[in-house]
Amino acid sequence: MNLAMIIYTLGWVVKVEGAGLLLPCLIAGVYREKEGLVYLICALVFMTLGFFMTRRKPDNTEIYVKEGMVTVAGSWLVLSVIGAVPFLATGEFTHVIDAFFEIVSGFTTTGASIRDNVENLCHATLFWRSFSHWIGGMGVLVFILMLVPVKSGSRMNLMRAESPGYDVSKFVPKVRDSATVLYRIYIALTLLQIVILLISGMYWFDSLCITFGSAGTGGFAVLNSSCASYTPAQQVIITVFMALFGCNFAFYYLIITKRVFEAFKMEEIRTYIGILIAAALVIAANIYYLHHSVGETLRESFFQTVSIMTTTGYTTADFNAWPALSKTVLVILMCIGACAGSTGGGMKVSRLIVCMKENRRTLKSYIHPRGVFKIRMDGRPLEENMIDTINLYMILYIGIFALSVLLLSLNEFSFETNFSAVAATINNIGPGLDQVGPTANYAGFTVFSKLILIFDMLAGRLELFPMLFLLYPKTWRHNTWS
Amino acid sequence: MNLAMIIYTLGWVVKVEGAGLLLPCLIAGVYREKEGLVYLICALVFMTLGFFMTRRKPDNTEIYVKEGMVTVAGSWLVLSVIGAVPFLATGEFTHVIDAFFEIVSGFTTTGASIRDNVENLCHATLFWRSFSHWIGGMGVLVFILMLVPVKSGSRMNLMRAESPGYDVSKFVPKVRDSATVLYRIYIALTLLQIVILLISGMYWFDSLCITFGSAGTGGFAVLNSSCASYTPAQQVIITVFMALFGCNFAFYYLIITKRVFEAFKMEEIRTYIGILIAAALVIAANIYYLHHSVGETLRESFFQTVSIMTTTGYTTADFNAWPALSKTVLVILMCIGACAGSTGGGMKVSRLIVCMKENRRTLKSYIHPRGVFKIRMDGRPLEENMIDTINLYMILYIGIFALSVLLLSLNEFSFETNFSAVAATINNIGPGLDQVGPTANYAGFTVFSKLILIFDMLAGRLELFPMLFLLYPKTWRHNTWS
Repeated sequence: MNLAMIIYTLGWVVKVEGAGLLLPCLIAGVYREKEGLVYLICALVFMTLGFFMTRRKPDNTEIYVKEGMVTVAGSWLVLSVIGAVPFLATGEFTHVIDAFFEIVSGFTTTGASIRDNVENLCHATLFWRSFSHWIGGMGVLVFILMLVPVKSGSRMNLMRAESPGYDVSKFVPKVRDSATVLYRIYIALTLLQIVILLISGMYWFDSLCITFGSAGTGGFAVLNSSCASYTPAQQVIITVFMALFGCNFAFYYLIITKRVFEAFKMEEIRTYIGILIAAALVIAANIYYLHHSVGETLRESFFQTVSIMTTTGYTTADFNAWPALSKTVLVILMCIGACAGSTGGGMKVSRLIVCMKENRRTLKSYIHPRGVFKIRMDGRPLEENMIDTINLYMILYIGIFALSVLLLSLNEFSFETNFSAVAATINNIGPGLDQVGPTANYAGFTVFSKLILIFDMLAGRLELFPMLFLLYPKTWRHNTWS
Repeated sequence: MNLAMIIYTLGWVVKVEGAGLLLPCLIAGVYREKEGLVYLICALVFMTLGFFMTRRKPDNTEIYVKEGMVTVAGSWLVLSVIGAVPFLATGEFTHVIDAFFEIVSGFTTTGASIRDNVENLCHATLFWRSFSHWIGGMGVLVFILMLVPVKSGSRMNLMRAESPGYDVSKFVPKVRDSATVLYRIYIALTLLQIVILLISGMYWFDSLCITFGSAGTGGFAVLNSSCASYTPAQQVIITVFMALFGCNFAFYYLIITKRVFEAFKMEEIRTYIGILIAAALVIAANIYYLHHSVGETLRESFFQTVSIMTTTGYTTADFNAWPALSKTVLVILMCIGACAGSTGGGMKVSRLIVCMKENRRTLKSYIHPRGVFKIRMDGRPLEENMIDTINLYMILYIGIFALSVLLLSLNEFSFETNFSAVAATINNIGPGLDQVGPTANYAGFTVFSKLILIFDMLAGRLELFPMLFLLYPKTWRHNTWS
């Protein structure tokens, strides 16, 4: 294994994150908070550490698939450990695991909080929490890869480990270019949302944090009521932007390159929009009796539906108090998740489409036993290889899900709590049902349960494989390393 | 489509079931119950109907895969419709859907009941309920196939549709012979259990019905307390026989043919026993505080664990009142199910093994990208084709599961009720948790919900594909039939 190269890459993560910690310092400066000093010291320490780790560039910059997996999993762990330090240093979190849970929840864009009260956090910490969503949303390594000089094939192996599945790369020949395209779209949409929220009259600090949370499909808010106390117009704006960030970014790339017709023909986008609208309407019909106002009902159902399906996790209503049908629809949306190639989590709409098509193919092959059927996506046939990987992913996903629910049930919470806590973390959503519902938080879990949920958040964000590699003994056997 | 042959086969189902209805008449005769007359009339009517349907043997006895699917799904529907008639005719069930639910639950060996009180049913009806488990356990068509003259390949297509996966057939060259072997083992074990229960001092009627329920891994009991009021010794006997009927019957075939060593080396049997013991011990540790007696704790935990994993559904304790860990273990066992090639339901242990091996292979292939790895079962490599089918099965299973929970949540029961009701029916177990727990029943569901659960029971028993074929429009398009 190219250990030197892994440490070198991790060094870049440390350096960049150290630099990132300067931003909350700025915020603390504006609000004249003494916590700014803590953030400043952390920033300097980690920038120095990162500087030493990256001082000598390794001669061999080759990264193979297995090393890519380890690097990615390692990067996210390092990122989270460093990110948790200021939480502890300011004294706002007293338990190590709580601080770690909170920042993992941030970087993985989950948005599940340990805190019952966030309004007594300082602005620097609130900003850092939300900013971690924005960094995590796009993938840390995609960003690092624009800075670090590695071989093109190695870059591919890293990027594939961080965000497998469909992506913009099939349109843009070089990985570096495709990362640049993705980041440009991401930054443009982020700026647009900030400006529109400011125009709508939202306070600048809220606009920034809420935008970071929607862009990364995270879900940390700056008020205890999440988004319930913003004006209806602001809620509609947030709904629209959450939905936009849940789209496959290839959609925007097609639009930018003036292939609008092709963009709207993308099967994933059509299915995604279809599911969103259908689910929101079912929920609206189901909760109409709570409001007796069509406008308010639709606003609430669309906000919650979009928030859950894009795995953001902002709320304007306590959906735990909704009737069973609406809750079940939300749990299913949690597992489906957003589009591949978006910042959202979950199993991804495209995987769902492939599975459905595969089922149809099998039924067909029984009727025409000698026929050979190809599964097509957007008109192009899919490789059988990719179909197998998707099947395997689904089965792994269920295995990790079941095991997590089993381990969580060591605490004495209800089945609904345990099941929805796993669903809300492995899919990077945030709020679940019952004792982890929108009005509750994750503080009640034992340390052991929190560790399980931390694993689920990371596994969910990295789409399972990198985290499993860390636990797979053969990865660490010396003789298997090249 | 060879419609004549389908009707001919269904005719045999009607005829044989008509003859089967003579048995409850006998029981009614012993107890001098007037309901016996109802059963006698039903028997005569259906035997006559069946006689007319099978009078003319079709010239072409060829049955292709798709026809096999339709025949199997059709047979089970016909079987259930006819089986429900005496329930309604005796006036013991007043609603058509309730009677249908009860008998589908019987034939699919689910054992989920609509009744809160079964002790006020007449003996003939109690017998017919339990006997339906015994018929359904082995597969109706396997039995019919021993009687009906069809081409050997056609027989294979029918049998594969009714019980796919591994089976004894790989040991015995002809399907008819393998069906005979299976039935001989089944009958021998059944007789053995009846005799042992009689020796243990159980009343003869209970011995018969409880044995039918264990043999078919059904779960209808003759007492409202299920098996709780039998003596400890009798409970242990029932536990052992439930476990025996949950084994792959290939295991017994190997033992009969004196290949004992090979039998105990079967990976599925080893895994099955391992899971059973591990789960029972975890539950025992978890519920020890309820009894403070090691013997009683072990008896209760083993009885419930075996009953749920083999998908039988007898109970001696209200596991709904157990702590969360035990309940979650049981829900996971519900989904794993018994061995393939047994009378039990669920996803089957062998499928679990294949999925686990597949996951390990994928991780390995990342570490050795150029290696080619075969998945082996009992030392023999599996066909990739079969692995794909298993993957697909798992995904279909989850799809049907999620859709059923969604549709059930139209009623206002808890998530735990809906989730476990689907788990208990699609895996052919019987009791679930909360409002469908061991002390409750399925009467509270709406007609719509009952229809969903009936579909789940049939889909689970026939391992999904045949029921989906009935709903797949292209099956019914004229031009696709040969």
